[in-house]
Amino acid sequence: MKILFVGDIVGSLGRKKLSEWLPKLKEKYKPQATIANGENAADGRGITEKNYKEILQSGVDLVTLGNHTWDKREIFDFINDAKKMIRPANYPQSADVPGRGIAYIKINQLELAVINLHGRSFMGEYEDPFRVGGELVKEAAERTKHIFIDFHAEATSEKEAIGWFMDGQVSAVIGTHTHVQTNDGRILPKGTAYLTDVGMTGFYDGILGMKKEPILHKFTTQLPQRFELPSRGRSRLNACLIEIDDQTGKAKKIETIRIDDDMTLFEL
Amino acid sequence: MKILFVGDIVGSLGRKKLSEWLPKLKEKYKPQATIANGENAADGRGITEKNYKEILQSGVDLVTLGNHTWDKREIFDFINDAKKMIRPANYPQSADVPGRGIAYIKINQLELAVINLHGRSFMGEYEDPFRVGGELVKEAAERTKHIFIDFHAEATSEKEAIGWFMDGQVSAVIGTHTHVQTNDGRILPKGTAYLTDVGMTGFYDGILGMKKEPILHKFTTQLPQRFELPSRGRSRLNACLIEIDDQTGKAKKIETIRIDDDMTLFEL
Amino acid sequence: MKILFVGDIVGSLGRKKLSEWLPKLKEKYKPQATIANGENAADGRGITEKNYKEILQSGVDLVTLGNHTWDKREIFDFINDAKKMIRPANYPQSADVPGRGIAYIKINQLELAVINLHGRSFMGEYEDPFRVGGELVKEAAERTKHIFIDFHAEATSEKEAIGWFMDGQVSAVIGTHTHVQTNDGRILPKGTAYLTDVGMTGFYDGILGMKKEPILHKFTTQLPQRFELPSRGRSRLNACLIEIDDQTGKAKKIETIRIDDDMTLFEL
Amino acid sequence: MKILFVGDIVGSLGRKKLSEWLPKLKEKYKPQATIANGENAADGRGITEKNYKEILQSGVDLVTLGNHTWDKREIFDFINDAKKMIRPANYPQSADVPGRGIAYIKINQLELAVINLHGRSFMGEYEDPFRVGGELVKEAAERTKHIFIDFHAEATSEKEAIGWFMDGQVSAVIGTHTHVQTNDGRILPKGTAYLTDVGMTGFYDGILGMKKEPILHKFTTQLPQRFELPSRGRSRLNACLIEIDDQTGKAKKIETIRIDDDMTLFEL
Ligand SMILES: [Fe+2]
Ligand SMILES: [Fe+2]
Ligand SMILES: [Fe+2]
Ligand SMILES: [Fe+2]
Ligand SMILES: [Fe+2]
Ligand SMILES: [Fe+2]
Ligand SMILES: [Fe+2]
Ligand SMILES: [Fe+2]
Repeated sequence: MKILFVGDIVGSLGRKKLSEWLPKLKEKYKPQATIANGENAADGRGITEKNYKEILQSGVDLVTLGNHTWDKREIFDFINDAKKMIRPANYPQSADVPGRGIAYIKINQLELAVINLHGRSFMGEYEDPFRVGGELVKEAAERTKHIFIDFHAEATSEKEAIGWFMDGQVSAVIGTHTHVQTNDGRILPKGTAYLTDVGMTGFYDGILGMKKEPILHKFTTQLPQRFELPSRGRSRLNACLIEIDDQTGKAKKIETIRIDDDMTLFEL
Repeated sequence: MKILFVGDIVGSLGRKKLSEWLPKLKEKYKPQATIANGENAADGRGITEKNYKEILQSGVDLVTLGNHTWDKREIFDFINDAKKMIRPANYPQSADVPGRGIAYIKINQLELAVINLHGRSFMGEYEDPFRVGGELVKEAAERTKHIFIDFHAEATSEKEAIGWFMDGQVSAVIGTHTHVQTNDGRILPKGTAYLTDVGMTGFYDGILGMKKEPILHKFTTQLPQRFELPSRGRSRLNACLIEIDDQTGKAKKIETIRIDDDMTLFEL
Repeated sequence: MKILFVGDIVGSLGRKKLSEWLPKLKEKYKPQATIANGENAADGRGITEKNYKEILQSGVDLVTLGNHTWDKREIFDFINDAKKMIRPANYPQSADVPGRGIAYIKINQLELAVINLHGRSFMGEYEDPFRVGGELVKEAAERTKHIFIDFHAEATSEKEAIGWFMDGQVSAVIGTHTHVQTNDGRILPKGTAYLTDVGMTGFYDGILGMKKEPILHKFTTQLPQRFELPSRGRSRLNACLIEIDDQTGKAKKIETIRIDDDMTLFEL
Repeated sequence: MKILFVGDIVGSLGRKKLSEWLPKLKEKYKPQATIANGENAADGRGITEKNYKEILQSGVDLVTLGNHTWDKREIFDFINDAKKMIRPANYPQSADVPGRGIAYIKINQLELAVINLHGRSFMGEYEDPFRVGGELVKEAAERTKHIFIDFHAEATSEKEAIGWFMDGQVSAVIGTHTHVQTNDGRILPKGTAYLTDVGMTGFYDGILGMKKEPILHKFTTQLPQRFELPSRGRSRLNACLIEIDDQTGKAKKIETIRIDDDMTLFEL
């Protein structure tokens, strides 16, 4: 089983890049499942129902989220009906918090469980991702050997820790949120594919996919800025491909994919 | 001019990896200057005079530091005499803070200015790295067109921001501190080589180069742990190579180097 | 010389409480100067020109600010002309940052220098308040022995530290920002009046002066909430009175003032 | 029922102040139960078995803790046997975390439940204090109407929020940790006594009970410092007295107690 995971899609440039490149990537890699993080799909903050449908239309099977989950008000209107979208599972255990943190993708006779978790270091006050993650993995393991985790977190220590914590229990732990792809993809000793961050998909000549000028002004003056997304410009796509053994659920291979003007990994 | 920059050397395994591989890397890449971040050289925290000398002995021309600069008491005894070591330049402007944040490496008729800066996001209360960095670059620019910055920081936004802020003014901005190499090396439009983080050099089967068990115990219990370094085990080396135009000081090429059991980029 | 200092005025209830009680307080205490923190004067976030004028109208001589300084866009239109308002002095040293951090109040033949400083612990990335504060105090000391500091900060350690740092150099260091009055008013050994936080002026049955329900919902769900201010309800006023020796500038007395339904310190 | 609660006892000066003043306070106020926070009882960080026994010896019935709970190694040897000491209840739900977060004090025919909770804002990664606190209060309510909470937290917003969250469910919510007594004691509308912070007991001429010089040096140089406690000097005691209706468990009165050279509330 091959899984393609696309990093945080930022704004219209990100969505456009995805629709342009996903068919080519699918043709080349032939993944059975495609997952993408959509927490920045709207204008860099949150996701609308229209964005959600557009991303599925581009060929994504399941959308994951992160700290920007609730940024667009309309999320509360459609998240409970969006069967192909999950949000971090370790949000507070309150009936007032909609959505769910785990979903299953059918792949022929197999199923892939996908879990979304949120980090806490430098990030916010969520339920313990180790505890909640452990419980969900146990739940998923009763149904399938194929489990994928999108760990949306800031600190490299917390990300590596979740990787080792899950080693041998899940097929892959892939980080999101920093918007910068890391170069540390590997198979941990007990068979879990690990990558600290898959990176982002969107504007290439900015900061985390946003226009650089307001952010630079913010850093040098500490004055409030309205963060802006460009509607045109160069863009990048960041993704990774994980190959999992159909029988055992163990990862066999992980490969990063970086597509931008400076490095396009393949010609089509 | 080619510069080899080796990421945070962690403990004895890191120093050993460096001494083993640096000769091979030098033979292959033929850099004119080799810089390494040594903030974790001792036992993961700080650097002793012995470590400093050992790193130079291995073939490094200049050592940079970071948030662990002061972790070993003896640093106060030798930092002012250590001509081949710099610490972040934006520490408080107090006469009580020893060391300096800029140094020059002679390379034939040329000079390479090396500046060490510290980030503030999620990190601590230092002088503004944009202001202090800008002033130091102006100072260095009166002497040379070749300027290299080690930006020791956590947040990808602050790192990308310093990159763009410095674009066209310096030859390279390379990040350190997260201990995870990123896969976003590029030449910014005005000629500055940029990489969010060069990664670390040390124990491969741990968390940030330290044993994973105590850190996992910390995350799952929040009980205090003594972080430990293994004295044996598999190790990795993370580095990057930057090629700079001798005339203009503009970067021509940046390449990441990752050496571990899963990916050794070249055979020797 | 007696100075009355009123803590963070929050919204319309806070402004109303001020206009109602300031005349009574002035009659009782007869201060020569009245200062108030106005960073929350608008709707809990920031200050408009109308708010500023209304506060002066109520009898305040000088308005100080804090982390909410820039929350209302129109601040940029009037701050440079608002001679009776200062913002934290240790904002970045950039020409793009308007306003100033020190002002002088004439009191018969004397002058009172008022300095506004911002803390960094848990707060944000500003210039060093110890360094900038020290420089400003030196500047003010050339003109007067009477110096008052509003230190807008979160951590009690940083606040007590500024108090001791300034002891003997200024007449008073009074904290703001936590919106809770502290009960530790004292004269430090070298003559500086100190109070960790003067408290807030506004809605009494909420959290920091805002309606409690959205904030409780935020804490229990981590969902985004729009923080709201009530337009009616019970309110409190928090202030302090400092008495300074006219000759030496040393503080002679500090007294906290708490006016709410549970404790009204005096009948009028 | 009257409860005397003494704020964070810091080091030997704090323990001495307690032993000196507690008899006098008991004689004056005649409390049925005395509780004290002991997280800083050792040398400012943590508590030893000897300290624990000394505090009980001075007349305290129950000791609460906080972020310094685990600072002294020997805590792991005696905490499970220390029947008169509790630690924050919302530590991770792991079998590896010793101690408990709730205890009961017998008072004639009545019982007082005492719960210790830890805040998260600016503090660390604990279980949700609203969720865990709510569960424990429900548990305690099956046994008694008299419930006291020591909420060890930094942010005034989180503290006021827990106060309102618990209003009507418990007899008192008193904050600790900032080491500065607040002047906002009140009975909330449904009968819960509330005080943001009770303050500390220990060295008066320092910062949070520690010597000021190293902390000032830390703030102005960001160099590591060894925090020190003086063995002699002036000291303060901070406490509060809560009166609870024996029948209903509702609070009837809350009074702060501040004893130092500048303000001794009563003569004996
Ligand atoms: Fe994102
Ligand atoms: Fe994110
Ligand atoms: Fe570091
Ligand atoms: Fe490091
Ligand atoms: Fe305020
Ligand atoms: Fe504030
Ligand atoms: Fe504490
Ligand atoms: Fe404490």
